[in-house]
Parts: sequence; C-alpha cells; structure tokens
Amino acid sequence: MSLTPLCEDLPQFLQNYLPNAGQTENTIVPFVTLTYAQSLDARVSKGPGVRTIISHPDTKTMTHYLRHHHDGILVGSGTVLADNPGLNCKWGPDPAANSPRPIIIDTKQKWRFDGSKMQELFIKRQGKPPIVVVTSEPIIKEQHVDYAICPINDTTKLVDWKKLFEILKEEFNIRSVMVEGGANVINQLLLRSDIVNSLIITIGSTFLGSSGTEVSPPRTVNLKDMSWWKGITDVVLCARLADD
Amino acid sequence: MSLTPLCEDLPQFLQNYLPNAGQTENTIVPFVTLTYAQSLDARVSKGPGVRTIISHPDTKTMTHYLRHHHDGILVGSGTVLADNPGLNCKWGPDPAANSPRPIIIDTKQKWRFDGSKMQELFIKRQGKPPIVVVTSEPIIKEQHVDYAICPINDTTKLVDWKKLFEILKEEFNIRSVMVEGGANVINQLLLRSDIVNSLIITIGSTFLGSSGTEVSPPRTVNLKDMSWWKGITDVVLCARLADD
Repeated sequence: MSLTPLCEDLPQFLQNYLPNAGQTENTIVPFVTLTYAQSLDARVSKGPGVRTIISHPDTKTMTHYLRHHHDGILVGSGTVLADNPGLNCKWGPDPAANSPRPIIIDTKQKWRFDGSKMQELFIKRQGKPPIVVVTSEPIIKEQHVDYAICPINDTTKLVDWKKLFEILKEEFNIRSVMVEGGANVINQLLLRSDIVNSLIITIGSTFLGSSGTEVSPPRTVNLKDMSWWKGITDVVLCARLADD
Repeated sequence: MSLTPLCEDLPQFLQNYLPNAGQTENTIVPFVTLTYAQSLDARVSKGPGVRTIISHPDTKTMTHYLRHHHDGILVGSGTVLADNPGLNCKWGPDPAANSPRPIIIDTKQKWRFDGSKMQELFIKRQGKPPIVVVTSEPIIKEQHVDYAICPINDTTKLVDWKKLFEILKEEFNIRSVMVEGGANVINQLLLRSDIVNSLIITIGSTFLGSSGTEVSPPRTVNLKDMSWWKGITDVVLCARLADD
C-alpha cells in the first residue's frame, strides 16, 4: 500500500522535535521519541490484536517520515504478538535503507522473527532485522536477529529503561529511538522525563470505546514546549515531558 | 475572576455548531450541544470533586461564549455535589441576562439550591435559578427552583433523555441545551445521535492520569463534519455524531 504525499507543513512543524545528530553524538543514550496515535478517548486500539484505523492517511505518512528519522523503532512484545507489524519505513527516496531497526521488548522470549512480517520485509530488502531485548541469554537464537540482554529493575520489576537505552547506543550504535507502543510501554515511558526527548501524539476524531486499550499514565504528567498541528480529521501534538 | 478576550477566530469556527433559532423553532426538542474539556488521556478531572485545570484561559472564555448561546446548561448531580459550580455566563455585554438556566439531573434528590454557588450568583443577579430534574414529585421544594418530573427509561434504568428534552422544551421553553458533564452523562449522550446536535470538545495538553474521571463511551462512536481549532496549548474539536 503506497503512502499519500507528506503534508507540506509537517516537516517544519516536526523539525524541533526530531533527533539531531549534534545533540546526541556525545550522549550515552539515544534520542528517544515517544509517538502514537490515539482516539479522542485515549484508546490506541479497540483491543489487543484488533487492527484499528485511527489516523487519516496524512498522519500515517507522518509516521513513516518519523521512522525515516530514527535509527530504531521500539515496541513491546504484546504489540508484535498481537499485530505482527512490519515496522519499516515507506517514506523517502530510499525507504528501505532508511528503515529503522525494530527493537522488540520480549522479556519472556515468546516472539519469533521466523514467519513474521518483519522477516518477510527483510527478505524482500524492505526492512531491517530486529534487535530483541531479553533479560538473559536467549534460549533460541534466530538467524539475523541481534539480542540485547538487559536487566530487570529490581524495584519496578520492569525493563531497566535507562540501562536498555545505554546498551542500544553502546552495543548497536542506535543514536535515536522512536517508541511506538504498545500502551503498556507508553504508560511507563510517559513517567520518564529523564529518558524521553520528544512526544508526538496523533489524535483521531473518533471514540474507540471503553473496552479499547488505553494510554493513561499512572499519575499526572505535565508537558512543556507544546505545539499543535491540525489536519483534516486529526491533530498532532508535539511536546516534551516536563520535569517531575 | 474576569475572562480573557475571546479569540478572534473562534466565533466563525463555532458558528456552524451553535443553536440556530430557525432550525429549532419547529422541533419538539431543543438543540443539544455536548461539550467538555478533557486531558490527552480523556480525563475530565483528576477525580470526583477535585478542581482540575485542563484548558487554557482562551478556551475557558469559549465555554462562556457557548453558555451565552444556550438557554440551558445541563449537568449531573455528581458534578454539582462534587464541584458546586456557578454555571452562569460571564461573557458578553450583559452576561447575567444571557446566563443559561442550570438544569440539574438529580434523580435521587440529593442536591440543594440553598447554600449553593448557583444561589449565591442568583442573589447577586449574576445567574439564573435552576431546573432540577427528578423522577417523581419532589419531597422538598425549594424557593425559585423549578422541577421537571421525568420518567426513568424502563430498559436502561437511566433518565429517559428523549422525554427529558421534550419536557424542557414544552414546559420551560428551553430551545437549546449545552450539556457540560459529568463524565457519566457525557458517556450516555455520546451514544445518542438522535438527540445530540453538536459536539464541542476541548483537549488540553496534559495527562491527568489513570485514576482520573474519564470520558469513553461503552462502544465505538464515529463522528462527522469534523473541524479543529488550535490554540496555544489546547485544541478544540467541533463535530456531529454519526448515525449508528
């Protein structure tokens, strides 16, 4: 499926919120962009594994433009197991070359590259192979897949995000990461103003209903440097997380 | 507290979504506008009774501009009991004269006008006295208060919305109603494309967190005639509910 052209005013709107080589070259962690599309009622899907159209073709193209500007694209295993996404880039003169590396948080080692959409795209030279994030030496090592072994945070019992981003930079030279989901990953990272550099949220003008999967962090989160873009049916908010 | 001036481009943006005398004069129900301000995570407050600032002063002025254009302003008793709101109009050359009549859904007859902010404003000639919606002859009848006796729908066990709006038009000559909340009332009326004429939602760029009071209807709700306005920190969506 081909993309509609990128809206003329989007590059300038997004510019200040994109990774900038100068900013990140000397840091020990990548530039991290948190981005997702939600309904008015803050649902990112009708439910796990239910393919849900929220955004207009214009903002779908924006997603691929954002992928073009990042080295890695991070999602949780819940999302890859439910949706089998391609996670490649379809925008630009050489989309495949600019596809980000998929980074899959798979602490329970349930996901397989073999047979996935990501593998299909990799074979067709339309996408890159993934980095799978595990907590210990993987039981099964798949061809073309890299593994990032990252500790669990003793207090939160979740992935140690800070450590993970350090590993991605140091071991895989990932200088920028776009976090696309799922809701669980987003809800955790909305609390991390120490990690997240940019927030880019598309809001589609529909309600997915209370049984959908929602983005809402466990506490109040304030933003700064807000800027809105309006499309035909959607709006996009660019912002940064305010310090706690 | 005085209002900031109304943004110049708001009247034109709102125009097609406001009550129009010509449209409603011959109908048996009022023109109904559903309107509220929410956070990015679709919360209308941090919790019951917690005064929560979501919107920018610009969109707060818009709320009073909307009140100016409606005969009635409807809220649930949960909201009046928790927030003790004034529900008057502060915008325009003669705000008090153009204040809408508060319409309070109080099926359990728990709320009292006496001692309320609404009474205070009424005494100061800055607001109108309310119409209280009850399901049977009220036990206590307060001075200056009108009562609308409206049946409960046998199937839903909720207020019979259609009947209520008919009563408001017929008995009280209310030709337009702005429904401001709370979340429970909004979630019910989002399902009623047969009743609601306009939807005006302000989205503030903050997250109130998962323990806040949320707006999300029990099922998917699609919209039509969408139009967005963007302010400094907020956006406003005007739309109509699509037929089921």
